[in-house]
Amino acid sequence: MAFFDTVIRNGTVVTASDTMVCDVGIKNGRIVALGEHIEEGSTEIDATDLLVLPGGIDSHVHLEQPTSDGSVMADDFESGTRSAACGGNTMVIPFSLQERGESLLNSVQEHHDRASGKCHIDYALHAIITDPSEQALVKDLPEIVKGGITSVKIFMTYENMALNDAEIFRVMEATRHVGALTMVHAENFDAIRQMTERLERAGHTGPRGHADSRPIVVEREATHRAISFAELVDVPLFVVHVSGGDVIEQIEWAKRRGLPIYAETCPQYLTLTADDLDSMPTEGAKYVCSPPPRDVANQEACWDALARGVFSTFTSDHCPFVYASDTGKQIKGAQESFKYVPNGIPGVETRLPILFSKGVSEGRITLNDFVALTATNHAKIYGMYPQKGSIAIGSDADIAIWDPKKRVTLTQDILNHNCDYTPYEGMTLTGYPVVVMVRGRVVAKDGKPAGEPGYGEFVSRGRSSLVPDR
Amino acid sequence: MAFFDTVIRNGTVVTASDTMVCDVGIKNGRIVALGEHIEEGSTEIDATDLLVLPGGIDSHVHLEQPTSDGSVMADDFESGTRSAACGGNTMVIPFSLQERGESLLNSVQEHHDRASGKCHIDYALHAIITDPSEQALVKDLPEIVKGGITSVKIFMTYENMALNDAEIFRVMEATRHVGALTMVHAENFDAIRQMTERLERAGHTGPRGHADSRPIVVEREATHRAISFAELVDVPLFVVHVSGGDVIEQIEWAKRRGLPIYAETCPQYLTLTADDLDSMPTEGAKYVCSPPPRDVANQEACWDALARGVFSTFTSDHCPFVYASDTGKQIKGAQESFKYVPNGIPGVETRLPILFSKGVSEGRITLNDFVALTATNHAKIYGMYPQKGSIAIGSDADIAIWDPKKRVTLTQDILNHNCDYTPYEGMTLTGYPVVVMVRGRVVAKDGKPAGEPGYGEFVSRGRSSLVPDR
Amino acid sequence: MAFFDTVIRNGTVVTASDTMVCDVGIKNGRIVALGEHIEEGSTEIDATDLLVLPGGIDSHVHLEQPTSDGSVMADDFESGTRSAACGGNTMVIPFSLQERGESLLNSVQEHHDRASGKCHIDYALHAIITDPSEQALVKDLPEIVKGGITSVKIFMTYENMALNDAEIFRVMEATRHVGALTMVHAENFDAIRQMTERLERAGHTGPRGHADSRPIVVEREATHRAISFAELVDVPLFVVHVSGGDVIEQIEWAKRRGLPIYAETCPQYLTLTADDLDSMPTEGAKYVCSPPPRDVANQEACWDALARGVFSTFTSDHCPFVYASDTGKQIKGAQESFKYVPNGIPGVETRLPILFSKGVSEGRITLNDFVALTATNHAKIYGMYPQKGSIAIGSDADIAIWDPKKRVTLTQDILNHNCDYTPYEGMTLTGYPVVVMVRGRVVAKDGKPAGEPGYGEFVSRGRSSLVPDR
Amino acid sequence: MAFFDTVIRNGTVVTASDTMVCDVGIKNGRIVALGEHIEEGSTEIDATDLLVLPGGIDSHVHLEQPTSDGSVMADDFESGTRSAACGGNTMVIPFSLQERGESLLNSVQEHHDRASGKCHIDYALHAIITDPSEQALVKDLPEIVKGGITSVKIFMTYENMALNDAEIFRVMEATRHVGALTMVHAENFDAIRQMTERLERAGHTGPRGHADSRPIVVEREATHRAISFAELVDVPLFVVHVSGGDVIEQIEWAKRRGLPIYAETCPQYLTLTADDLDSMPTEGAKYVCSPPPRDVANQEACWDALARGVFSTFTSDHCPFVYASDTGKQIKGAQESFKYVPNGIPGVETRLPILFSKGVSEGRITLNDFVALTATNHAKIYGMYPQKGSIAIGSDADIAIWDPKKRVTLTQDILNHNCDYTPYEGMTLTGYPVVVMVRGRVVAKDGKPAGEPGYGEFVSRGRSSLVPDR
Repeated sequence: MAFFDTVIRNGTVVTASDTMVCDVGIKNGRIVALGEHIEEGSTEIDATDLLVLPGGIDSHVHLEQPTSDGSVMADDFESGTRSAACGGNTMVIPFSLQERGESLLNSVQEHHDRASGKCHIDYALHAIITDPSEQALVKDLPEIVKGGITSVKIFMTYENMALNDAEIFRVMEATRHVGALTMVHAENFDAIRQMTERLERAGHTGPRGHADSRPIVVEREATHRAISFAELVDVPLFVVHVSGGDVIEQIEWAKRRGLPIYAETCPQYLTLTADDLDSMPTEGAKYVCSPPPRDVANQEACWDALARGVFSTFTSDHCPFVYASDTGKQIKGAQESFKYVPNGIPGVETRLPILFSKGVSEGRITLNDFVALTATNHAKIYGMYPQKGSIAIGSDADIAIWDPKKRVTLTQDILNHNCDYTPYEGMTLTGYPVVVMVRGRVVAKDGKPAGEPGYGEFVSRGRSSLVPDR
Repeated sequence: MAFFDTVIRNGTVVTASDTMVCDVGIKNGRIVALGEHIEEGSTEIDATDLLVLPGGIDSHVHLEQPTSDGSVMADDFESGTRSAACGGNTMVIPFSLQERGESLLNSVQEHHDRASGKCHIDYALHAIITDPSEQALVKDLPEIVKGGITSVKIFMTYENMALNDAEIFRVMEATRHVGALTMVHAENFDAIRQMTERLERAGHTGPRGHADSRPIVVEREATHRAISFAELVDVPLFVVHVSGGDVIEQIEWAKRRGLPIYAETCPQYLTLTADDLDSMPTEGAKYVCSPPPRDVANQEACWDALARGVFSTFTSDHCPFVYASDTGKQIKGAQESFKYVPNGIPGVETRLPILFSKGVSEGRITLNDFVALTATNHAKIYGMYPQKGSIAIGSDADIAIWDPKKRVTLTQDILNHNCDYTPYEGMTLTGYPVVVMVRGRVVAKDGKPAGEPGYGEFVSRGRSSLVPDR
Repeated sequence: MAFFDTVIRNGTVVTASDTMVCDVGIKNGRIVALGEHIEEGSTEIDATDLLVLPGGIDSHVHLEQPTSDGSVMADDFESGTRSAACGGNTMVIPFSLQERGESLLNSVQEHHDRASGKCHIDYALHAIITDPSEQALVKDLPEIVKGGITSVKIFMTYENMALNDAEIFRVMEATRHVGALTMVHAENFDAIRQMTERLERAGHTGPRGHADSRPIVVEREATHRAISFAELVDVPLFVVHVSGGDVIEQIEWAKRRGLPIYAETCPQYLTLTADDLDSMPTEGAKYVCSPPPRDVANQEACWDALARGVFSTFTSDHCPFVYASDTGKQIKGAQESFKYVPNGIPGVETRLPILFSKGVSEGRITLNDFVALTATNHAKIYGMYPQKGSIAIGSDADIAIWDPKKRVTLTQDILNHNCDYTPYEGMTLTGYPVVVMVRGRVVAKDGKPAGEPGYGEFVSRGRSSLVPDR
Repeated sequence: MAFFDTVIRNGTVVTASDTMVCDVGIKNGRIVALGEHIEEGSTEIDATDLLVLPGGIDSHVHLEQPTSDGSVMADDFESGTRSAACGGNTMVIPFSLQERGESLLNSVQEHHDRASGKCHIDYALHAIITDPSEQALVKDLPEIVKGGITSVKIFMTYENMALNDAEIFRVMEATRHVGALTMVHAENFDAIRQMTERLERAGHTGPRGHADSRPIVVEREATHRAISFAELVDVPLFVVHVSGGDVIEQIEWAKRRGLPIYAETCPQYLTLTADDLDSMPTEGAKYVCSPPPRDVANQEACWDALARGVFSTFTSDHCPFVYASDTGKQIKGAQESFKYVPNGIPGVETRLPILFSKGVSEGRITLNDFVALTATNHAKIYGMYPQKGSIAIGSDADIAIWDPKKRVTLTQDILNHNCDYTPYEGMTLTGYPVVVMVRGRVVAKDGKPAGEPGYGEFVSRGRSSLVPDR
């Protein structure tokens, strides 16, 4: 009988700091050996000339999340994790949205229910708090943290979701108390609403208006405000989906002051621009997400910040809506005003290949940076390390084998999400995942699913590496 | 018959840029001649070895302003302008407060009524908008601008006064439309309230808690936010009573970005610290004002910014409450929590001597800077130049003659306000105004009133120099 | 007999802070009266609808300065001051260059000799020290300061002129000792030489190579270095002819640190670009000056810094060489390599009209800023105030009357220098000086000389306003 | 026969990104297996509760380097590497100093000779160029790069060593051409010399004068200048031994501009201050090194920059001189003036324990940061990765086993250098290396040598990770 369940032979194993050619031995779903010539495995995979990377963790994903406008997210936990797997991911962290007036605890249970038995890869949950009642903060939050949900996201924009300043303050006091990490979507709601009205009065109601109604000033302002609250309450803060230079300036300013402020960016801010919203009059809605893509200078600022280590993680903010559907981008009103267009774009499957190609293959970041930004840092920051996020002895065998030379042109028909388009249609990439395994089992191969729904398990998370023990 | 009504002989006339020894000829209340040896005046004043400065304009003064907590301001338009005159001022700009729910137009009329027939020196009014209704912004505001009130202040803190972000946005759109200058009291209301609750829970309820509940972060945040809104709406912004380095950093950051952001500071931020609020347990309330005095490093930052031209004006934020009164600092509740202590300190009479002594006499700023910061810039920024603010042909003869060598120790008993204390008790100064005249008539002499109530007239103002014609 | 020698009636008198319509009375060469309706003058000038400004002071001018390469400056003290007068100036401060190995005292005497009996307008001298010997610094420098030359310029570039770091340090120690102001031409000599060699090796030897051999990095570096020495020695520093944003950033960084660092810019940095050096292959030499003009973004940075008060003065750096002459731009070698082209362009006559038109008429700066930047600040910074630089009682009657509506197209044939071209050929301006008087006597009218050589006197200067008494 | 030569069992293996409990299998001097339970080794080491780290690489060490003042370095390659081994290092990179007038190639050969057969641990060499002749740059440099010396250090200070600006430029052009990394000691020589003379004139000649003669301004200036040259020549630059906040500000400013500027700091800048130079009048010389230690605020700035990733490496700048010797700190003249005191302090043995204790044990940095800063980044930056610097399959078995709980008080008598003092006398630490092995062989145990001279081999290095392929 073979010593290992699986052995990956002769690949180039890459961690967030190291690169080595070796064999990887897997047993009972965990990595138990790295070596020059290790013993036999029941399954043997030849990885000669291939890269053996920690499977991607996408810590910013929206799946089957409830909405208040009648729209429906294109992906549920089944299709979303399937798409993720095919794009090189072994884990996602979708959000559990508390709707206003709803119990926080119930909302988490509902998302557990939605995920249960559906996932192709492992998953965890972040909690979104939109209704920071006494019950939610004092009673429910400690419960859900105990249940392994140790990060809380708040919104500073969106009808029915934006918290006011007092609420932000109170949520931070609560996350501080329980040792959870605070994440923030930083855009100023009131300003966007006022700008929107102004644009509507001017008849500027097409999709491009979406970008014009939320210039980077509104993101910068909210970021500064969130940093200020974090400073007052003395908590670390994670700023999600940073879109450009002015916001990066705030993040770095805070870091230089010694404040524990961290951030992520996403593929759309590296590759799309606001012009995508108006270049194709009828199709601009495909690029409507928040914050909106900016311009080339802001793309460069994001790339530069990625390379300099300003961003801790790189995520997709996958938030898919079908384009040709009245529960998607064609929802009632969307033709009249951009403000009705559901916010969000698909991306969980394309995140890693885009960063690999534009980042690693084109020489902007190193392979080790890639691993840190797409896997290891997520595991540490979201309290799953060393179980997840690395190729290390004892860690789960969550591995993506990449062919760094494989040329792929992104098109809707090669993707595996339930959305009907990709904003990256036609983009040609170098480098793609060819085998993806979760806990030692192959879940995707050559960009197609190879596992089954329900294999993916819920990962109960511990304290974030960013949150101090007090 | 004498050619001039009054001639001031042989003084050192100082403007915001120049210094010259000459005679000043006054006729019909205006300056009509400057010269080496001018003709005779009915009244002759010998100013040999004295400084002849434009009378001070105090553009941040609260007089007989309504409150919502039962407190009563110590000074009305009579005593306030009397006190101002004795401290070297020839003009004040108090605020006309619109109370929530009240008509903006009515509020202005009420303040006109309060001022009428009472003032020792000339006065104008700023409008405070707390209720930016359609009526207020669309109908009333153009009216009051036409009536010579061309500046609007908004609050980002204070119960019943703080505007939310949407309201700030709308007020700026309105001021932009009518060409009025927007002024802002920048502190984050929600944050202060949350901090206050936290301090109260911790039993930290003495006057020092006032400072601890509103650390400079809350001022910095609100300043950044106000700047951001001004950027979005494309209006100039005037940030009042800046208290320290972190806020100055925001102001300068905005200026370097090319934004039309301006600011003032006040004597309390150059000479007092938060320690004054707790050094004398029972008397800390005397120093309760907002923003609170900070620390020595922030004093230095304010001095440095004054010297470098970051601040456009220097004002008192005179807002007097009697210490030993239950309509003043001893109001119901004040013993239980700092949050009930009325915010504000007297200072209209001491502003100029403090800056003269600590600034000019001690070599931190030039005499020309002093004139710019205390008179000329006020006149320009608030739309009264060249009628007011300088010693120039054609300008009103609003003149303060200073003895730069005169030593004065500030004590309550030499002051002329209706308050029962001065926060600067015991401070020894070098330099004091000895004759103050408004439109050619002496209104104060040697620190005592020499005019009469009702002489002071309302000054209808034009467009601020900071507001572009569009 | 008329009371005044001259009266200028009904003009709009402008100072660095004020603007007033009044009459100006002049007697014995000084301004003795400003008033609404003053008495008669022997000469009466109607200035209705005209501006009455302090005559321009150009504190950065090179006239008949010795060179070491056989080139000859196009203007001597006669033609240079004639040209200056026609462009609205009433005073210039050319440099007295000490050549290496020469006595500092002698060099000053030689420049006095060159100037004596030649000047159309008043003049002072700066001393350039290129050979900071013990004799120069300890013996001669105090002498020349006593003789009214209270500013010392040093070069950080140019063969035979650049000081090394130890010499810079020692000069600053010496200027500190005698209370003189240190001025610096900040470009890194070694770097420029190395860059030049590289360009020559690459065959890039045309005039454009001049700009490419001294990118703004070499100016930024030298500026930072000079600031650092000034910090070590504890002296104020005046950085001449700043050409763009990176250098401005250093200046502002120093100011924010509380260092007494000041700077000027010049018309070429507001209106020309490096492209002017190569757009006309054979004529690029006409634009060769150091630092070279940069690009449009740097022009904007300079305009912005002017408007924000970062620059204390605005000068021409007039340094004229005849284009069509082998002692000018066609000097031996100039065809082979840019490095032989004499550095410098004419500009003393065009400085004021360019700033007036592009700055005041186009709304970038105020008229008061214009006066400060072109006259008053020069007088203060270079120790001649209040004798020079303002329209104030007792000051010399150095006055330029401008027609703010006059349209002029700059062309070589309207100018009065001895150079054979203007780099601003064809530029159309709004606003031009129509009468220029020095000490009450008209020296130029409608852009043509109206005085005579020798009328201009040497002005012995006192301590700079930037240099503290110790 | 055992499968492995050595197995380290059950330790906590730490890399720059990962932490895992596992066994390490070593064969033929290399790490060939990591696993949960690996096969037997001829030697078995139980590392339960211990940390298994990559051996430290000290890339800034001076050993037996020639001097020009008669002083003699306390450590040669034997004692220096012995001391290094006992302090947890498995490799050092001393400098090969080219003396002025000497051949670069010969100087390297001499240092090879000095090292050969002497070293306890592996070593490489950096080349110091003090005489950038055509021969040195064009002929010798490519040779020594081929010989595995791929980094070149230059001095901006020190008699006989400082390069002038033209030389710096040319060296950078040469390193660019051959793909070597440029390192710089950034202090302004002329400024220091001038400051020294001033201090001597003032009779301030004790050791404290050393710090006062080179305030951080001289380091900041030289850093800005070196950055500027690197920008002009387009090379990456490594700034050694950064001592405080003003220099860090320059480094970060450059990074934000996208320039490839990197830096290191050293223990003395985290733990000593300038006061150490004068607190013990006769012993201040023990702390004389360049740059000098600063103050507590600068220590904090260095710690903060370490934690934020501004510094790429942490080194000792070990440069030992015997205190009680006239070829050491008591050299002729040292009593008369600090300027004769040899510059440098010992530290190769204490570097790692100090950073471990003050950094890791006290919670300022993570264990992974420690590994990156002390080993992995050195290997990458100096072109030895993956042979050196990590615990990875295929890498040399250069390993330090640490007891993280071990308490050690640093005193001269426990150290193994040839110096007669340690500047850290009496400092109590938590965490110390207990077994150190180079290529699988134990070279130190419990702070005492366990290997032998001559075991250590020269490591020929490749291209730095910071230097791009062109």
